[in-house]
Amino acid sequence: MSDVSLPPSTTLPLGFRWSSVQAGIKASGKPDVALAVCEGGAVAAAMFTKSQVVAAPITVGRKHLAATGGRVSAVLVNAGNANCATGEPGIEACKKSCVATANAFGCVFDEVIPSSTGIIGVPLPVEKLIAAVPAAKAALGSGIEHAEAFATAILTTDTKLKVATASFEVGGKRVNLFGCAKGAGMIGPHLGPPHATMLVYLFTDIAASAEHLRAMLSPAVERSFNSISIDGDTSTNDTVLLLASGKSGVAAQGPAVAMFEQALAEVCNTLAHKIVDDGEGVTHVVTLDITGLSSDAEAMTIAKSIANSPLVKTAWSSADPNWGRLLAAAGKAGVVFDPAKLTVHINELPVFAHGVRAAAYDEAALHEAMSAREFTIRMDFGLATGACRFITCDLTHEYVSINADYST
Amino acid sequence: MSDVSLPPSTTLPLGFRWSSVQAGIKASGKPDVALAVCEGGAVAAAMFTKSQVVAAPITVGRKHLAATGGRVSAVLVNAGNANCATGEPGIEACKKSCVATANAFGCVFDEVIPSSTGIIGVPLPVEKLIAAVPAAKAALGSGIEHAEAFATAILTTDTKLKVATASFEVGGKRVNLFGCAKGAGMIGPHLGPPHATMLVYLFTDIAASAEHLRAMLSPAVERSFNSISIDGDTSTNDTVLLLASGKSGVAAQGPAVAMFEQALAEVCNTLAHKIVDDGEGVTHVVTLDITGLSSDAEAMTIAKSIANSPLVKTAWSSADPNWGRLLAAAGKAGVVFDPAKLTVHINELPVFAHGVRAAAYDEAALHEAMSAREFTIRMDFGLATGACRFITCDLTHEYVSINADYST
Repeated sequence: MSDVSLPPSTTLPLGFRWSSVQAGIKASGKPDVALAVCEGGAVAAAMFTKSQVVAAPITVGRKHLAATGGRVSAVLVNAGNANCATGEPGIEACKKSCVATANAFGCVFDEVIPSSTGIIGVPLPVEKLIAAVPAAKAALGSGIEHAEAFATAILTTDTKLKVATASFEVGGKRVNLFGCAKGAGMIGPHLGPPHATMLVYLFTDIAASAEHLRAMLSPAVERSFNSISIDGDTSTNDTVLLLASGKSGVAAQGPAVAMFEQALAEVCNTLAHKIVDDGEGVTHVVTLDITGLSSDAEAMTIAKSIANSPLVKTAWSSADPNWGRLLAAAGKAGVVFDPAKLTVHINELPVFAHGVRAAAYDEAALHEAMSAREFTIRMDFGLATGACRFITCDLTHEYVSINADYST
Repeated sequence: MSDVSLPPSTTLPLGFRWSSVQAGIKASGKPDVALAVCEGGAVAAAMFTKSQVVAAPITVGRKHLAATGGRVSAVLVNAGNANCATGEPGIEACKKSCVATANAFGCVFDEVIPSSTGIIGVPLPVEKLIAAVPAAKAALGSGIEHAEAFATAILTTDTKLKVATASFEVGGKRVNLFGCAKGAGMIGPHLGPPHATMLVYLFTDIAASAEHLRAMLSPAVERSFNSISIDGDTSTNDTVLLLASGKSGVAAQGPAVAMFEQALAEVCNTLAHKIVDDGEGVTHVVTLDITGLSSDAEAMTIAKSIANSPLVKTAWSSADPNWGRLLAAAGKAGVVFDPAKLTVHINELPVFAHGVRAAAYDEAALHEAMSAREFTIRMDFGLATGACRFITCDLTHEYVSINADYST
């Protein structure tokens, strides 16, 4: 695990306490249970995987949020076991862990949101999870070290800690936002009102209704976590959970709304970028700026077709400006366009225009630009104003090694 | 190049002659121009890539077939250059090559169908192609060696010759079918009335109308070439062309129709399987038998989601029965199903049932079964009768090496 930690000057959102403990669920023996608590309850908005195969905690979490109208007192996360494809016993195990947590904090059990990430299809060792709750409660605190302990315990194959913060002042009062994420493979999130999974927890002390929180979360997620892909694989456990304690004394109204939306976008974009940057075997992080289509949805369809093309991704791994593969990947997306109107740039370097290779095409300069860890591919289709920005990565031997490692 | 050749007893369809020559388009110096001729003209049906980015020969070939109502006297194929993303000059070059071929054979230029495969975005050296026509004409012949010469010259990154034949007798007369194919990467065909491309040429001596040929070709292609994927990348040049000389004296009517359809399906299925088997870096060929969905289209959507999942494909490369990845890939396809009704077998071995790992799950036996070069994954969703059979392969280090090789 390597990464910068939060700076000591970070101000965390008021009203939350975090902790982590080692429950023996991860084979590595690292901390594997993370707990977040908001005394008195936070207002919550969540977006879960749209997969048809969902883990038990997704099923239970959805029910709990529906039952409470979006009120959450505690979040209990385990890493090392996804509690997915574990049938009715998996649901029962999940519920038991919620009941144990609720008992520990004197809240009703549906104010507890469960999350699991790790191996699919192996029964959750719920006794270990439940046995860890008292120690997790005892370890709770509101300091930077506590927030980071939470953010660390949720990781599995990740190599880096993924945290982000933002804050703003309005009317002399400060609103804080702290977010953390895990995920390095099986990343092609498709979230609605993902063995590795994307889990994102966002904590803020603004005051807002559950409905308003949902309305603000959805576009932020669409432009961040739903606009990234490592391997195009949507997980069975993907979750984004936003909790608002209200303890800043600032309500989400008037000028605070736009300020909060910007802070939320910033935190989501930073975390989404960190997920791709820590993707399995990644050596290049690529931003796709797709413009000039009939709709944003069409732009997104083309971005995903490029981002999930093995031929494009392998070319990126060797810094190869293989625009033929880019065109082929765009062409198969099912979106109507005219190649003669398409212009392609990599960073600011011209690649393709007027239906042929750009006159100023400079292979050596392109190869050099693409040898950097990050570069941007701009494709303007010249038809209308539909656009999207999408972040993805290359496909390397290391990705194959990580995922072909058969160790049973 | 290694493969069994056609047996000496093979009877080829009457009315065709084939040849190949070396025109200097392939850097390797191997034969790179293939010519097929049907004196007096053959009736033709074709299916081309549905990509929005298509090569010049696709544009020209479509126009020619429309102009003639499906009449073809000659097929001129070059390998080594795709003549794609070459703009108006590419179209002009393609037309010139057709005119030169038409002049050589005394037919009208739109009775010539051009095909190109190879690198995208580099101007076609049309002078070399045109200069090769006389030699190609002089080399024409109707023997097995001629048909195989044609089938060999169309190859690029392929490591094996891909040919198939079928024949049947009706009313004392014999109908013959000979097919050949190229393609090893950028294989995820999506053909309508796919730097490697899929090219398939089917020659028969049955007599049929263009309309009837198209009607028979479409389902055969749907169940073969449109039901395979190596990397999910649809090419800009993919073509399936069926030519019928009529020289068997057998018309496609009465009992001959079903016999021909079966022969056509057999040849298409054999060629489609050979394409996957020769896929870039392939070590396992996997058949997906997807059943029990609301429609065949839904079954196909799930099959493609599995076949194009990097996590599934890397697990296959190490013979890992990672059913969690199978479920996750099915779950993200956007098709509604109930995991509790799903059963999964690999060959005849139970994997998943009743929402959990099958009671008789035998990890060692599964690993052994999957260590064979070929195995079948059967997923029955238990809802209705929608089904498909799809052939795909694993994703290996070798695939990454081949496609990340940056040699400019």
